[in-house]
Amino acid sequence: MPELRLNLITREWVIIATERAKRPEDFKTTASRKESPPYVETCPFCPGNESKTPGETFRISGDETGWKARVVPNRFSAVSASGNKERRIDGLIRNVTAVGVHEVIIESPLHNTNPALLSLEQMEDVVKIYKNRFMEAYKDPRVEHVIIFKNHGEGAGTSLEHPHSQIIGTPVTPVQFRDRLEAAAHFFDDTGECLMCMLAKKEKEDGVRVITETEHFLAFVPYAALSPFHTWIFPKRHSASFGNITEAEIKDLALSLKNILSKLYHGLTNPDYNFVIRSNKPKDCDLEYFHWYVSIIPRVSKAAGFELGSGMYINTSLPEESAGFLRKVKTA
Amino acid sequence: MPELRLNLITREWVIIATERAKRPEDFKTTASRKESPPYVETCPFCPGNESKTPGETFRISGDETGWKARVVPNRFSAVSASGNKERRIDGLIRNVTAVGVHEVIIESPLHNTNPALLSLEQMEDVVKIYKNRFMEAYKDPRVEHVIIFKNHGEGAGTSLEHPHSQIIGTPVTPVQFRDRLEAAAHFFDDTGECLMCMLAKKEKEDGVRVITETEHFLAFVPYAALSPFHTWIFPKRHSASFGNITEAEIKDLALSLKNILSKLYHGLTNPDYNFVIRSNKPKDCDLEYFHWYVSIIPRVSKAAGFELGSGMYINTSLPEESAGFLRKVKTA
Repeated sequence: MPELRLNLITREWVIIATERAKRPEDFKTTASRKESPPYVETCPFCPGNESKTPGETFRISGDETGWKARVVPNRFSAVSASGNKERRIDGLIRNVTAVGVHEVIIESPLHNTNPALLSLEQMEDVVKIYKNRFMEAYKDPRVEHVIIFKNHGEGAGTSLEHPHSQIIGTPVTPVQFRDRLEAAAHFFDDTGECLMCMLAKKEKEDGVRVITETEHFLAFVPYAALSPFHTWIFPKRHSASFGNITEAEIKDLALSLKNILSKLYHGLTNPDYNFVIRSNKPKDCDLEYFHWYVSIIPRVSKAAGFELGSGMYINTSLPEESAGFLRKVKTA
Repeated sequence: MPELRLNLITREWVIIATERAKRPEDFKTTASRKESPPYVETCPFCPGNESKTPGETFRISGDETGWKARVVPNRFSAVSASGNKERRIDGLIRNVTAVGVHEVIIESPLHNTNPALLSLEQMEDVVKIYKNRFMEAYKDPRVEHVIIFKNHGEGAGTSLEHPHSQIIGTPVTPVQFRDRLEAAAHFFDDTGECLMCMLAKKEKEDGVRVITETEHFLAFVPYAALSPFHTWIFPKRHSASFGNITEAEIKDLALSLKNILSKLYHGLTNPDYNFVIRSNKPKDCDLEYFHWYVSIIPRVSKAAGFELGSGMYINTSLPEESAGFLRKVKTA
């Protein structure tokens, strides 16, 4: 009998459609990817084209190429770097000027590399940059909430091939985050425990949905995964904010992230995916009922009218099978 | 200055990215569509192939082809038609057997027609069927919530070309619907008014986002439209449930829906889209603070990591411009 499973963090039900279920192998990407050269003259992110991306805000210097990774403002910014935050409240109208932070993190000088193929050291640099830019974004007094995310592949919404991630600081807090905080607060009131700590503990005990465990992180397919190979990486130490990640944890998160991205790359033939860091603001890092985490969503299925109309997802894979498959994928 | 706008129904902020804004014409579908014949031997929805879809639950008879429209169970049902509704609550596990209703509404015997090209009479038949199946689905004691939706085109998640819509009755209520009810209830407590009645009144007064107005319905691009050409059709008469639609309103909704779908078809060159009827259950139709409506979402932009990670959307069109464009599109 197929079942619906409740995601206790989002309160969303997911239909685990076992009657439609596919084998993990069936989700492999079949679209052929074009082969790109390591340098593309028209790419604004390639070395030598730095003048196309003015206003560099951060760089990790390298020996030969000049830089190993760099951060620049997004040229097609969703929010404006300049301007005041102004609210308008008028009858049923609520708006606020779209001011804040929107940066691009260029992860490598190589145009044709893949995040799954970065060295561990490069991945550590990327996570270090995430922390640096996350803390910087929150220094902007106009910023209420910060999202770090990556779009890999056209199906995941990226328009530039050169490996990069993005950070956006918005002048308001999204209701999706408020809802998660509220669900976690209710759980804390009910049980005296952090919901995410309890979930990680339970996933570790069960084991069937765990993909990898490192010193500081547990990576698993959630019980109510909204789509095939949906993966969460939870820090083992309780903390409400990514801003509070330690040096040792940065190294270990890089390892865990590289593991998972490599498993997706090799196991599913370089699928499109998004990932996002879900976190509270640094100054609220001590909140006892929220816990930051990374969510990775391979784009191997499509949300349609039912998902849009209900917020419920139909997952045509068994989370336990997805996890079992990824667990076995060799990455080297 | 670009702005963020708050959708008072969903409480979601939308970034209206005017710096990235495109002209309405730029969203026209450029992908060429294959030309299909009116009958396809392997299509389970074409006349003559009725044996491939056993268990017909409803039909509108025609003179020549045998039927004008029919309803059958979905062969790849997301929920099981048989079986008991059973809950499991065990520690952090919450699940329920995936039982309920999943039907396909075949809108025409013609394989190669388009919803935008249906006659007004055919569209009325479709809306009549929606009401009939909506009421039937809620008679199933296992069903808690019913979604009527349509996926048009591959980009909207459809796998079969023959024009059809779907109805799914789930054994739980989605949190998305609970959240809308709650937001509407708070508004009612604050003001003594139905939020949707007030929004429709305000949109009619403003006029700039209205696309069409018929006797019983107002079609407009919402102030905080989440994507280009996102359209809401609101009934003017207050009612919390689609189940309570009158004969006259069915005719008029068919007219409004045909108008909008035709404007999308002609103005944007047959784009992919989803639509959904957002409604409370029939027995709660008298609820004073909720109001059913239709939401149409053309799939002319792509949700990426930011949308997944924040629930906020970036809309690269001005709702007022989208509405002005659609208002002018001639449909005959």
